[in-house]
Amino acid sequence: MSDDTHEHGNSLAEFRAYRERMNAEILGESNLVLNRFFALDGRTYEAGVLDVKTKELLGLVASLVLRCDDCVTYHLIRCAEEGVSRAQLFESLSIGLVVGGSIVIPHLRRAVDRWGELERASG
Amino acid sequence: MSDDTHEHGNSLAEFRAYRERMNAEILGESNLVLNRFFALDGRTYEAGVLDVKTKELLGLVASLVLRCDDCVTYHLIRCAEEGVSRAQLFESLSIGLVVGGSIVIPHLRRAVDRWGELERASG
Amino acid sequence: MSDDTHEHGNSLAEFRAYRERMNAEILGESNLVLNRFFALDGRTYEAGVLDVKTKELLGLVASLVLRCDDCVTYHLIRCAEEGVSRAQLFESLSIGLVVGGSIVIPHLRRAVDRWGELERASG
Amino acid sequence: MSDDTHEHGNSLAEFRAYRERMNAEILGESNLVLNRFFALDGRTYEAGVLDVKTKELLGLVASLVLRCDDCVTYHLIRCAEEGVSRAQLFESLSIGLVVGGSIVIPHLRRAVDRWGELERASG
Amino acid sequence: MSDDTHEHGNSLAEFRAYRERMNAEILGESNLVLNRFFALDGRTYEAGVLDVKTKELLGLVASLVLRCDDCVTYHLIRCAEEGVSRAQLFESLSIGLVVGGSIVIPHLRRAVDRWGELERASG
Amino acid sequence: MSDDTHEHGNSLAEFRAYRERMNAEILGESNLVLNRFFALDGRTYEAGVLDVKTKELLGLVASLVLRCDDCVTYHLIRCAEEGVSRAQLFESLSIGLVVGGSIVIPHLRRAVDRWGELERASG
Repeated sequence: MSDDTHEHGNSLAEFRAYRERMNAEILGESNLVLNRFFALDGRTYEAGVLDVKTKELLGLVASLVLRCDDCVTYHLIRCAEEGVSRAQLFESLSIGLVVGGSIVIPHLRRAVDRWGELERASG
Repeated sequence: MSDDTHEHGNSLAEFRAYRERMNAEILGESNLVLNRFFALDGRTYEAGVLDVKTKELLGLVASLVLRCDDCVTYHLIRCAEEGVSRAQLFESLSIGLVVGGSIVIPHLRRAVDRWGELERASG
Repeated sequence: MSDDTHEHGNSLAEFRAYRERMNAEILGESNLVLNRFFALDGRTYEAGVLDVKTKELLGLVASLVLRCDDCVTYHLIRCAEEGVSRAQLFESLSIGLVVGGSIVIPHLRRAVDRWGELERASG
Repeated sequence: MSDDTHEHGNSLAEFRAYRERMNAEILGESNLVLNRFFALDGRTYEAGVLDVKTKELLGLVASLVLRCDDCVTYHLIRCAEEGVSRAQLFESLSIGLVVGGSIVIPHLRRAVDRWGELERASG
Repeated sequence: MSDDTHEHGNSLAEFRAYRERMNAEILGESNLVLNRFFALDGRTYEAGVLDVKTKELLGLVASLVLRCDDCVTYHLIRCAEEGVSRAQLFESLSIGLVVGGSIVIPHLRRAVDRWGELERASG
Repeated sequence: MSDDTHEHGNSLAEFRAYRERMNAEILGESNLVLNRFFALDGRTYEAGVLDVKTKELLGLVASLVLRCDDCVTYHLIRCAEEGVSRAQLFESLSIGLVVGGSIVIPHLRRAVDRWGELERASG
């Protein structure tokens, strides 16, 4: 796999390692507000009247229109774990593109690139 | 119903009338790009591998985190038409709140206010 | 006081009444994520190693650059309660203007208008 | 002219009066940073290697994608003064729509509504 | 040319290669909405009552205030192809800076860096 | 120090060198608006009725909610120079997180990472 697969410069493994290391450092500071926010963030995507898959798609599209690559990567990982199909992914991304406009396109490219990386990892 | 029900200053009927009148004026200009965008916007939410209800929830949460009251109103109307329940609505809004932060709260208030208006209209 | 004092269309009293009524409706839904977020939002501005006044100024400038008039109004009310001076307010707003650019100006106008309303109310 | 012409709730005359009154109050505070920013904002659109009309279109589209109705109104007034045609306006707006996405549509409606108001005022 | 020319980590050649590869993968998915959006995006900047150069400047400033480096890079390439002068570029960027504020500065730095790269490539 | 300390790909030294080099190139262009904006940006954070430390915290939180890593890095450097404590930093960041939502988290991680780098540099 050539280097240019990852324009964003880090692999999924690097993304996960960095995320875990920095989350641990942040939570270790014992700031009440930060720690509660992180806990709440986790609760947000648990199953309720909406299933987890739908909630992850909502998180994904929200992250896409707000153009946060790392947030998109996180929700793509979770969508893959929840069994979102490639066609379901592309329909979700298409909503993000139409709502958010062409400014979303570079993030869409990186999202599709990441999805390919996830497919290869699970293949 | 007292005036302060609508902090946003216009009822659903007024929202619809204004939207239709201005859309007609925009489309009547026959600008190719604008007209194709409006047509594409309509296609985006048609049933595919994701059902219409899920797509409308995606449009709703995207609109909420981007903090566009009129877009939220539009998707709330469509969610109501598609049979989204009050509990499903609140779970979707909660994702928008956590992703977008407290800056979303005023839009959340107006969204819940609109939903009540839609419930009363269909009651 | 003439009508054009409030371009935003609602007085401080109306803002407070609407905010309280809708917050009550939202919290009454007993959605765990929403209710915890609202509780956490309250905790965020409590005194810590930073005093409440500084925290409110941080909330104000964050709200200004994100261009949320209702959030700005809320923090202006709290700043007035905490004894922020007019000169301190304008220095804080000037930082928001430079960081956020001329797109912030209409929100700056409404913020200054609100501040005058708060000064008159406490005068 | 019926009331629903102005969903945004204020006429061009009211917009101008409010803008002038609040600008005067802000500048009267003699905050160095604010005053220099306002002066700089004025200089930005003066003729240079780009003519004033092009600069106003740049300011208009920037305001549209950032979704600031008051900023859009201001640049529409200036575009009308500089002789921008209706077709030039719509092409500029179409770029803002494609770049910014469907979230821009409510602001596009109000922009087209304002333009009609400007045309009638000069007719 | 030293490494630090490209803080963004990829050369123009890499930008183009990645863009083409991912666009091909996206379009190859045959998602109707995505493909129509990409086609429409291309149409948006074609000559009309506004010339292509003006449209590219509008796309550039819109991308700058929305702070999308890849979108800025794309429009810089097109501006260079359309014969935009260095002085015209800087005036356009200055409008983006004043509208969008100091938060735009890091993107302005990278835009000016890219422009130098384009000048050297065509020199 | 391993490579993954800097997910953002550049050290503080590289950040400073790039910033200085590009600022020099921008100012060297002698564009009146750009140069005045840069001068004004510097003035914004000078001591007034608010002290420099408070102003830098305001700039930091504004940059965090607008999600500009380079702007956050700049204000972190200045906060460290002004003697902001780790606890004061985390309280400020927590306000940015609650206002801006989970979309801020990746920027929060990088901010905390940078702060560690600054602590080690001054240790």
